[in-house]
Amino acid sequence: MPRLRLALAQTNPVVGDLAGNADQIMEAAEKAAAAGADLLATGEMAISGYPIEDLASRPSFLKSASNAVRDLAKRLQDAGLGDLIVIVGHPDGPFEPRLLGTTNAPTAIAQNCVSVLQHGHVKARYAKHHLPNYSVFDEYRIFVPGDELLVLRINGTDVAVIVCEDLWRDGGPVGRVLEADAGLLVVVNASPFERDKDEVRLPLVTRRATESATIVAYVNIVGGQDDLVFDGDSVVVDGSGTILARAPQFEEHLLVVDLELPDAIEDVALPDRVSRVTLSVPDRRNDPLPIDVAILPDDREQLWNALVSGLRDYVRKNGFRSVVLGLSGGIDSAVCAALAVDAIGAENVHAVSMPSRHSSGHSRSDAEALAERVGLHFSIEPIADLVLPFEDQLSLDGVAAENVQARVRGVILMSLSNLHGHLVLTTGNKTEIAIGYSTIYGDSVGGFAPIKDVPKTLVWELARWRNVFAAARGETPPIPENSISKPPSAELRPGQQDQDSLPPYELLDAILDAYITRALGHDDVIALGFDRGTVDEVTRLVDRAEWKRRQGAIGPKISGMAFGRDRRLPITYRPSE
Amino acid sequence: MPRLRLALAQTNPVVGDLAGNADQIMEAAEKAAAAGADLLATGEMAISGYPIEDLASRPSFLKSASNAVRDLAKRLQDAGLGDLIVIVGHPDGPFEPRLLGTTNAPTAIAQNCVSVLQHGHVKARYAKHHLPNYSVFDEYRIFVPGDELLVLRINGTDVAVIVCEDLWRDGGPVGRVLEADAGLLVVVNASPFERDKDEVRLPLVTRRATESATIVAYVNIVGGQDDLVFDGDSVVVDGSGTILARAPQFEEHLLVVDLELPDAIEDVALPDRVSRVTLSVPDRRNDPLPIDVAILPDDREQLWNALVSGLRDYVRKNGFRSVVLGLSGGIDSAVCAALAVDAIGAENVHAVSMPSRHSSGHSRSDAEALAERVGLHFSIEPIADLVLPFEDQLSLDGVAAENVQARVRGVILMSLSNLHGHLVLTTGNKTEIAIGYSTIYGDSVGGFAPIKDVPKTLVWELARWRNVFAAARGETPPIPENSISKPPSAELRPGQQDQDSLPPYELLDAILDAYITRALGHDDVIALGFDRGTVDEVTRLVDRAEWKRRQGAIGPKISGMAFGRDRRLPITYRPSE
Repeated sequence: MPRLRLALAQTNPVVGDLAGNADQIMEAAEKAAAAGADLLATGEMAISGYPIEDLASRPSFLKSASNAVRDLAKRLQDAGLGDLIVIVGHPDGPFEPRLLGTTNAPTAIAQNCVSVLQHGHVKARYAKHHLPNYSVFDEYRIFVPGDELLVLRINGTDVAVIVCEDLWRDGGPVGRVLEADAGLLVVVNASPFERDKDEVRLPLVTRRATESATIVAYVNIVGGQDDLVFDGDSVVVDGSGTILARAPQFEEHLLVVDLELPDAIEDVALPDRVSRVTLSVPDRRNDPLPIDVAILPDDREQLWNALVSGLRDYVRKNGFRSVVLGLSGGIDSAVCAALAVDAIGAENVHAVSMPSRHSSGHSRSDAEALAERVGLHFSIEPIADLVLPFEDQLSLDGVAAENVQARVRGVILMSLSNLHGHLVLTTGNKTEIAIGYSTIYGDSVGGFAPIKDVPKTLVWELARWRNVFAAARGETPPIPENSISKPPSAELRPGQQDQDSLPPYELLDAILDAYITRALGHDDVIALGFDRGTVDEVTRLVDRAEWKRRQGAIGPKISGMAFGRDRRLPITYRPSE
Repeated sequence: MPRLRLALAQTNPVVGDLAGNADQIMEAAEKAAAAGADLLATGEMAISGYPIEDLASRPSFLKSASNAVRDLAKRLQDAGLGDLIVIVGHPDGPFEPRLLGTTNAPTAIAQNCVSVLQHGHVKARYAKHHLPNYSVFDEYRIFVPGDELLVLRINGTDVAVIVCEDLWRDGGPVGRVLEADAGLLVVVNASPFERDKDEVRLPLVTRRATESATIVAYVNIVGGQDDLVFDGDSVVVDGSGTILARAPQFEEHLLVVDLELPDAIEDVALPDRVSRVTLSVPDRRNDPLPIDVAILPDDREQLWNALVSGLRDYVRKNGFRSVVLGLSGGIDSAVCAALAVDAIGAENVHAVSMPSRHSSGHSRSDAEALAERVGLHFSIEPIADLVLPFEDQLSLDGVAAENVQARVRGVILMSLSNLHGHLVLTTGNKTEIAIGYSTIYGDSVGGFAPIKDVPKTLVWELARWRNVFAAARGETPPIPENSISKPPSAELRPGQQDQDSLPPYELLDAILDAYITRALGHDDVIALGFDRGTVDEVTRLVDRAEWKRRQGAIGPKISGMAFGRDRRLPITYRPSE
């Protein structure tokens, strides 16, 4: 019975950084070879990062990516790693354009590929068949689907390779390669995190493995890329449904596992459009490996880690060293500050209290308390002397006077960014972004929105969780209790509280879950049993805020339906339901 | 030989406004009946507006749209228009979900349909086969493709109906319905304007007509919807390639034309999956119609009209009555003001000069000159007293001090919007948006960007054209000559001129055309013969400005590649070409 030592490289690529991403794979290959691995697989598009979006339409970008794969093959050989079989994900092209309608229209010229490298050469290639074009994915827009399948015969056992979405489609390539009696199915993925996704993903992997009595090795990238966070969670499941190995979430990791594989059936007839490439690896007598099965953290820890990971990588991959944010003493900015400290260290986090004449005493003291607990840089910039000249010159009152306070704060934060190079974080939560409860060009100012996809009720939940998590480790809970327990207020006029003008947050979040996350229409939401008047008001607010959302900063997606490319709706919209 | 009097309704729907859009169609039907028409066709999705984006995933929205079509059939009957055959575009569903991958993923439940109404009932239905998923289109994301074809046998002649993209695909439904020997092909469209598109569209319509010796009736909607402008330009071409009728661009219009059609071949075998529905209309003896063939204006007039149309409809459809913009005396804001005056009338346009200590004398005088020429509301808000407190309190200098001037102006415009309900226009052109030559939350503030898709060199060209156009009509040229001829400057520091820090605009626009409009990669642009250093610098600026563009206002697309959903690129991107 053939044995293979398989390594899965959970790397954190940067989109476009072909050289840097190849370095990550080289490093993984060196570790894999040192661990005695025969076969190493990366995630989807590990060479280019994922998603590459319309970069896929640039001929020279595609050529560079193809070259980067060939160069990697040579580098592996030159480094004495030529025997290691490396399965690497990358875009490929340019191919003959697939014409998409008019002669003016852009055409798809790329494929979403994996290449199999050994002994300095590209030995085989596979192109993804199923191109997801829902949710955040636009692959049907940019790729030409593949229509051939690949089986690698390695030392007498058959290994099939497919990419991500191919695994999900019943009757897709997965069925056909398993007809070919592969003993191991390697699935190369760039699968973004969302809450509870592991409750869908792992059962799917397990089902594919048990239905076909085949070992399934699922390898995923990690790290933040704009609004997406890839969680890794690479896993190997055998034909009985047992997890043989599992990588930790959100961390770069090399997962190595020994597999006992069936002998290939010599005379099995290959189904149509399946090609088989024969490779061999040296026989080795390896010491047994320690078992490497990471435990998945609980729901809130996963969410927190996703947010930290998204923020850290946005900062790092865009060349920032530090962040600045307004600290109001409220729960949203407190949670954002705690996330920033966890992401890039307190020494790189600058927080500013910007009290106005309407600010409560606890606004400043709660902000100071947080600063002391976590040790970030804290300063105070009162806004009264900056606001007054606007009020006087423009005779402001009402909403105009409220908004100018928020906008003056925005100017302060952007000025500090211009002076010191900090990335500005905007601290709005999903609930307020949904209903437009914010001042555009005011508190919405910033390049990244750490809790953009976190509804208000979940912000509180995560704050409490983070404090308990710290306490359990003997650390200081970062978030002042008063920031969690006090009633939320924008403090733009005397005595203002959110709940004066909004439904209770529990109700509001429940309606928003139906209207946004579940994408129901107005009448469908009412049919769930919510009060018609409240639904009218909430959906009206959501619809009217679309123009603000379009101008909002990106932030990490953690739900099944985040604002941004996940939810595409018109600004100009006159609802008639 | 059967004769049909055909009417094409070039309506201007609002997305979501099922009742208002149906009213437009009723009005067209009344006019069509009064003109003796037998058959009326609307544009694609005339009932719902286009594009409906992810509204297509809401079951209750789809039900309402279906009901609106049935109600329209009844209203037509009740109004005594039951004999008129009305072909109307609308979304339909919900259908059984087309599963798109994971169980969590949204599914397509809608089709892009036309229904054929007569005598109070829906007599037939067709669903679009080819779903464009390139450029600004995401139809593969939201629709289930149709797979059946429809031929209407009306008074012994065969009329086929297809939708938009179906016409463009060789070997698509258009070929199969013509096999069925239809004498008239009605194509129902929502085809957005872009420069020179008529040079592709009309030849295509003509080719389809002449290849098959069939009359092709092409009906398109008009008006602005967010970043798209539909130009109408509905046209009827006969089998010899002669234009029988053509509607004006950008205007609501009912085009009526008499057609001599061949007798249907009684025993023609229908191809697979083609259904034929027999209808009849009363015989009439109509007076001959006047010929209605609009002349297409020249290129610049088309562009100007597209910009005016996009701006007017954004204002009107979003419930605004007036706009406000900063008037610097420069060319960009002058052109935006002239567009706004043409779109909604000078009495609804408010312009503010916001001079700083760096502002030149001509800055204010050129702004005043424009205000006088076009008669808009003009006011002056000096910014010195508003900027100084920031400079003092935050010790600003350099870029931080430059930006605070632009941001203070943004706060002024937003305050005026909050006080008076004006829509704020942001006056950035495509060149500066491309390279990020603007202050985010400063001059980029606003809900709509009238010249977002107009490169700087074209801004000048359009300004000159608009002045000549006015002079030719004996009107005052709106744009002061000095605003056109003076060297451009942001005036954020003493003596600053754009050309101190940027390549000449002719060169810059040429490189941007290659990198953006033609979507070439960095190395591909150099291969065209541009200087490597300049290309390095320009592409670097473009890549780094992506985060600003994501937060920018929408504006009308007039080119083959506009910023926004037309061009989807990552913010986090480390180019390695």
